[in-house]
Amino acid sequence: MKQINTDVLVIGAGPVGLFSVFQLGQLGIKACVVDCLSQAGGQCSELYPEKPIYDIPAYPMVTARDLISNLQSQIKPFKPLFLLNQKVEKLMSEKNTFISKTSNGISISSKCIFIAAGNGAFGPNKPPLENIEEFENTSVFYSVTNKENFSNKNIAIAGGGDSAVDWAIELSNVAKKIYFIHRRDKLRAAPNSVKKLKDLTENKNVEMIIPYQIDSIKGTNGEISELIVKNLNGQSKTLEVQFFLPFFGLSTELGPISNWGLEIEKKILKVSQSSCQTSQEGIYGIGDICDYPGKLKLILSGFSEAATASHHCFKRVFPEKSLHFEYSTTKGINTFS
Amino acid sequence: MKQINTDVLVIGAGPVGLFSVFQLGQLGIKACVVDCLSQAGGQCSELYPEKPIYDIPAYPMVTARDLISNLQSQIKPFKPLFLLNQKVEKLMSEKNTFISKTSNGISISSKCIFIAAGNGAFGPNKPPLENIEEFENTSVFYSVTNKENFSNKNIAIAGGGDSAVDWAIELSNVAKKIYFIHRRDKLRAAPNSVKKLKDLTENKNVEMIIPYQIDSIKGTNGEISELIVKNLNGQSKTLEVQFFLPFFGLSTELGPISNWGLEIEKKILKVSQSSCQTSQEGIYGIGDICDYPGKLKLILSGFSEAATASHHCFKRVFPEKSLHFEYSTTKGINTFS
Repeated sequence: MKQINTDVLVIGAGPVGLFSVFQLGQLGIKACVVDCLSQAGGQCSELYPEKPIYDIPAYPMVTARDLISNLQSQIKPFKPLFLLNQKVEKLMSEKNTFISKTSNGISISSKCIFIAAGNGAFGPNKPPLENIEEFENTSVFYSVTNKENFSNKNIAIAGGGDSAVDWAIELSNVAKKIYFIHRRDKLRAAPNSVKKLKDLTENKNVEMIIPYQIDSIKGTNGEISELIVKNLNGQSKTLEVQFFLPFFGLSTELGPISNWGLEIEKKILKVSQSSCQTSQEGIYGIGDICDYPGKLKLILSGFSEAATASHHCFKRVFPEKSLHFEYSTTKGINTFS
Repeated sequence: MKQINTDVLVIGAGPVGLFSVFQLGQLGIKACVVDCLSQAGGQCSELYPEKPIYDIPAYPMVTARDLISNLQSQIKPFKPLFLLNQKVEKLMSEKNTFISKTSNGISISSKCIFIAAGNGAFGPNKPPLENIEEFENTSVFYSVTNKENFSNKNIAIAGGGDSAVDWAIELSNVAKKIYFIHRRDKLRAAPNSVKKLKDLTENKNVEMIIPYQIDSIKGTNGEISELIVKNLNGQSKTLEVQFFLPFFGLSTELGPISNWGLEIEKKILKVSQSSCQTSQEGIYGIGDICDYPGKLKLILSGFSEAATASHHCFKRVFPEKSLHFEYSTTKGINTFS
């Protein structure tokens, strides 16, 4: 089993986890970052890389992708070790050291742990259909990677938000027919997009199946033959489709962290505001996963929490040293010697 | 008297004061910013515009000047009103409204006040000489704006830091003679500069007057004729100079704010960490001027405090509205309609 020694294990490679590597580095503290995704950046890279963010201080606008890329440049001098595509599963504590094991079998010894896991590991919300797993990745998809697969097919798209509406518009260019299923009249998507979708129903290949809910799927060998929908009066319709794309948003789960005995409420870690320390000494919560009175779920607040936790954990990492507070304008970048 | 109505009066146009305009603006709250300096940016613009800052999140490096310029671009959509070159002097409270008066005689009515005054209003430390004010701006200067004024003159420069040493080196190129006065042997300036200064004493027009302190100034009509210096043994020297440049660093003072009845300790405002509100409802402290357990004097922490205060003050500014938390990626920039 591979063994890694570090000062701080950072769980989560989103913007806050990444910035904590910088704050730790400036204090001479080494970090190793674990994330269940295949790339750094968390939701910024995975869900909305192209989206403009307007409230990062001193950036009138920055795309999520550029934000992550700039953070990666900023932490580069500290050469953090990234362990991607894996979760931290087990946690043991020995004296003042934590021993964590990842799902890839790597063992990490650290003095402290920063949990910067955002909303937790995330995945799609699935429709509550018993047999849906039989069809996943063959005729049921929760995201679109290759439009051409849907060329000249009948597709059912369900949901009422931006993803459902935007993909219906987009795929109407290649599909034979699109059934747009939603349980109520009102769509939650951008008004412009909703208008575009409604225009498409008039003279193109989009049909609104509203207000209907998914009732059941029929098919064999992972291939859908029929999708049955019902309205509140129990009336049902049978749609002959080859593909079903439910866009019901993302759900998140804390995963193994929830078994570590930390004080947690509604998937959120309770931390002390002055230190960002959880109920367990040496384990910190920063970013969207933590809560304290007045907490705002903003990336910029997470940056500040990363600084708070980094300064607080110094004493545990270096019990024999005293921390001299210095401005970056004075000391520059404190790379490891 | 000019009368201004706004939602929040922001005192201090440093980085944190500027960013608060953005956070307030995103919540539909209007701001007016007052600063005693002649430009926005606080110390960043006034003291170290060229210095690189390394710990602004997602900026591997940014000069203080560029940081301010980017913040100004970010708040531009909200068209904040800037009142520069003036202090807020008087404060009165009427029901739920504050009436502030600036030193330029402008009256500002606001629902809330954000104090983002950093270390306070700052100015030069002056030598403790009774009559120094008579000579200020004619033959005594605390900063150099035009080197040519000193051409072929005898100049006394006092101090032991970088400013004193750097200006002695620089002005030795134009002055007839420079007397460099310091109270002790050791200079606190960069070793390279100190060496350069000492080299200049050997073959050029610089004379070290060490260890001496300023004793008195003589002259008439604002023009110095003699500067008298003394050492610890009481021995004195008389220097015939036309100019005297004391570089004793900058001091800061809270100014009128200290008389507003707020809870203050060592020039720092005590605030509630969850709201950044001071001991007076509706008055907030953000950035270096505020303190709470675990407070870090970092610009990035001030940014987060600006967000905290902005969200907290919403209820006082709009008692009838409820605050809907929304990400900037969803709502974009919320300019005033």
